[in-house]
Amino acid sequence: MSLEKFGDSFINFIYSLAKSQVLGEYDGIKVPNSCLAEALTLSEVESPRRSDKHKKGDFVEKIVAKSWIDRKITEEECVEIIKSAIMKYDLKERNEERRAIIEGFKDLLNEIKKRG
Amino acid sequence: MSLEKFGDSFINFIYSLAKSQVLGEYDGIKVPNSCLAEALTLSEVESPRRSDKHKKGDFVEKIVAKSWIDRKITEEECVEIIKSAIMKYDLKERNEERRAIIEGFKDLLNEIKKRG
Repeated sequence: MSLEKFGDSFINFIYSLAKSQVLGEYDGIKVPNSCLAEALTLSEVESPRRSDKHKKGDFVEKIVAKSWIDRKITEEECVEIIKSAIMKYDLKERNEERRAIIEGFKDLLNEIKKRG
Repeated sequence: MSLEKFGDSFINFIYSLAKSQVLGEYDGIKVPNSCLAEALTLSEVESPRRSDKHKKGDFVEKIVAKSWIDRKITEEECVEIIKSAIMKYDLKERNEERRAIIEGFKDLLNEIKKRG
């Protein structure tokens, strides 16, 4: 059982799809764990106790995956939430893209929290 | 434009989902490029001329992605085709899983070819 590994593949796919739709050209991205950790810190979702960056990233992978598996959120909804956040950034510039990813997943986490 | 990178994230996701459903527990997998190359060789899809393993793997990533983007095949259909192939193998054993991946993507490529 490795829900966070599954979540990793789900997150890379939905972010790659969101970015591709925003740019109008296809691209594939490995979302950095550090961005997911930062998104969690900035979100309204409570972090696990005494968790470092790595554990926080895994935690995000798990809750995003679980929410999709439990049909609380669809793949299309995830992509739309991320797109709304990242479209304000220059995704061709590395630091801007980091900020875009952080905001996108912060918004996704907040929506997941809202849906319980 | 990097359709093969997008295809990489799509392929990792659909294979991870297929494997998770077969095993009844979630897991995330990075599908090796060498397995995709081997699947192409065994399939009815013609390989690009003078292509090595790396180029063949990229080619598979591109045509699977393109087929899904163009709505010739759905994500669910991809997962079902892969599941039908890999369920015959012991996915907990590394060499068996390689053979499972090769057969799964060979079948997917043949279905994509059939649909034109």
